[in-house]
Amino acid sequence: MSTAWKSRFALRTKNIKSSAIRELLKITQRPEVISFAGGLPAPDVFPVARFQEGCRKVLELNGHQALQYGASEGYEPLREMIARHIARYGIKANTENVLITSGSQQALDLIGKLLINPGDRILVEAPTYLGALQAFNVYGAEYVSVPSDEDGLQTEHLEAPLRTGPKFMYVLPNFQNPGGTTLSEGRRHQLVLLADKYGIPIIEDDPYGQLRYEGEHLPPLVVLDRENLRRDNGYSIGNVIYLSTFSKILAPGLRLGWIVAPADVIAKLVQLKQGADLHTSTFGQMVAYEVAKDNFLDEHVKLIRKVYRERRDVMLEALKKYFPAEVTWTHPHGGLFLWVTLPEGMDCNKLFEAALKENVAFVPGDCFYAANFAKEGCRHLRLNFSYGQPEQIREGIRRLSVAIKQQMREAQPAHVQSI
Amino acid sequence: MSTAWKSRFALRTKNIKSSAIRELLKITQRPEVISFAGGLPAPDVFPVARFQEGCRKVLELNGHQALQYGASEGYEPLREMIARHIARYGIKANTENVLITSGSQQALDLIGKLLINPGDRILVEAPTYLGALQAFNVYGAEYVSVPSDEDGLQTEHLEAPLRTGPKFMYVLPNFQNPGGTTLSEGRRHQLVLLADKYGIPIIEDDPYGQLRYEGEHLPPLVVLDRENLRRDNGYSIGNVIYLSTFSKILAPGLRLGWIVAPADVIAKLVQLKQGADLHTSTFGQMVAYEVAKDNFLDEHVKLIRKVYRERRDVMLEALKKYFPAEVTWTHPHGGLFLWVTLPEGMDCNKLFEAALKENVAFVPGDCFYAANFAKEGCRHLRLNFSYGQPEQIREGIRRLSVAIKQQMREAQPAHVQSI
Repeated sequence: MSTAWKSRFALRTKNIKSSAIRELLKITQRPEVISFAGGLPAPDVFPVARFQEGCRKVLELNGHQALQYGASEGYEPLREMIARHIARYGIKANTENVLITSGSQQALDLIGKLLINPGDRILVEAPTYLGALQAFNVYGAEYVSVPSDEDGLQTEHLEAPLRTGPKFMYVLPNFQNPGGTTLSEGRRHQLVLLADKYGIPIIEDDPYGQLRYEGEHLPPLVVLDRENLRRDNGYSIGNVIYLSTFSKILAPGLRLGWIVAPADVIAKLVQLKQGADLHTSTFGQMVAYEVAKDNFLDEHVKLIRKVYRERRDVMLEALKKYFPAEVTWTHPHGGLFLWVTLPEGMDCNKLFEAALKENVAFVPGDCFYAANFAKEGCRHLRLNFSYGQPEQIREGIRRLSVAIKQQMREAQPAHVQSI
Repeated sequence: MSTAWKSRFALRTKNIKSSAIRELLKITQRPEVISFAGGLPAPDVFPVARFQEGCRKVLELNGHQALQYGASEGYEPLREMIARHIARYGIKANTENVLITSGSQQALDLIGKLLINPGDRILVEAPTYLGALQAFNVYGAEYVSVPSDEDGLQTEHLEAPLRTGPKFMYVLPNFQNPGGTTLSEGRRHQLVLLADKYGIPIIEDDPYGQLRYEGEHLPPLVVLDRENLRRDNGYSIGNVIYLSTFSKILAPGLRLGWIVAPADVIAKLVQLKQGADLHTSTFGQMVAYEVAKDNFLDEHVKLIRKVYRERRDVMLEALKKYFPAEVTWTHPHGGLFLWVTLPEGMDCNKLFEAALKENVAFVPGDCFYAANFAKEGCRHLRLNFSYGQPEQIREGIRRLSVAIKQQMREAQPAHVQSI
């Protein structure tokens, strides 16, 4: 291996580390390991037969178009479908407000490219989605973290950080990754009002919003922002950029996400997308449209909700049964994850090693914090409940409890010694 | 539209303009226009039936894998296939040297992200591929242009610019876009030697290499670089990053390209790809593998060569028949494009307007030069010969000749006046 290349790498790549999760996934792919680490949808809910039919139709009726270059904005009927789809949640958008991206991850990359100058501070929840940190890091982002609890981002701690002038806020209001928590309605109103007051835009990332297993749907920030519209303030006209994806409601392997934003923002993002990958797969977009249309997606989401709700309940029961009383966890109303808090003095990375010996895996909590706040994550772990079968979930939680109890015993004397 | 967002855009986006070509394509989509503007493959050579079969098999045998998240590096069998495929051209690569990208455009974006610090000078051919300029601009690239002729980049003019320490050279040796020219074997050797002497890496972009219609295949720069390997100089071990794509030999709608590079470069690019879009569509990769395998691709490339060779010949004949003697053009040995030079005093953008009135379109030459060299392109046009049917090509060139003759008459008096 030549060392010459290293000296050529741009400064912006200095802080780019491989996603810890994706490296972990490699270790945990051994068949004997039960992994709660990935954020993978259950493959058994993929509508494979419907995809067969969709591919057949697209190639038969529009094969030449499906295999040819397409528009950077995305496949027009798919953009129209998305605009109709989100209208039900009160999000008013025309086709010109919708950009198709190569998964939500590309949306985060394009937003970083569009908005972040090196040294800009981004306001994030603590903890937050590590893929967003990864996307923003490359553009030289720095971070201000605001703590969250079972009701999401603690808006009562928001005003001081907002006064320091962050470039934007990045928030996951529904069944947050990794916390599994949901921003309460009261806090949503407060967040939008404060964003408006200080003129700070919001990036609302909503990959899981439709996967709710209990309680009522809460209004998206982008909707509250519009209702709040005061024409005497330029910022209140479309202060929110909204992101979502087909990854959790259809299939992640297609890499199809979307951005909803004011038309002038979309126009600039389209230019950046041209330079980034010209456009997202025409074939993938046309197949997704064919699969999703005629209300198939609505019916399919009902099935996913049923399967994932059951798995969440199995995990919550197993946690109650096996985990020591000193360990706590969130109660997610939807999504794919829950968040565990270990007793003081314990370390999630030591636990990870012990857990691997028991053939069970999770993601250590410190991955989900900006580098300068990583220590806060050391007592936490993220568990995924969407991927495993119910019996695997029960057995995995049992194994994890063995590792936790062992670590608690080891941590105890050390803790005493350190006093 | 809020003006508020504009003030939030990052500095790097200031110089990002929409690709002129893609904007033009919109104008030229009127059915009465014969367009030589796009770089589109002929849809009639897309192997639609083979795709039908490929989709069916992938979903039937591996549906769950095809619709799930995959590795950032790409689908392993596809990477192995690419490594075998390029070995025939003397390019020695293992799977660890191959990264699948979302089209070659993403390869250019990732390379810009990896290598370019703001203000870095990139050495490019004049003219060069405008998508590369678009990808590199966003990272703050500046440019040094080296002139080219029918034998490609003029290596005799290379040493002075190399002494100024460009970050890398970006070169399209085969049937260049837009020039249609091919770097001669002598110049290839010289280019690699000079790159080695000055320690300047080469990005070798080769989307068209397999589409040769006459003459012998010439060795890629990446191969000459290896042969040239001197172990006492770190730089000569893998000084070239090689890019190619399925867009021109299979179908561009899939957005599938690849990068061949030393393993440490690939490892860093994989990290950047994680942040950019996690990975390229699993389904698209598996279908492409299924379609291409069992030597189908080789047979298919023979068909494409036959069809495009005929269209090139039709265009060359029509140019000879219709164009005035004062106009010259390149004779491409392969690829999709040829490059026309107008008489002194003529302007390609004025001609573009006149041509549109005659219902024929092309890309004005100045699009293919870095901003500070754009004037050099004003006497040139790029013509694509892969997309149109032979009779359309003949008629389009006839129409274009009408516009050219009219512009020559108008340019003449103006030219006289200006003296």
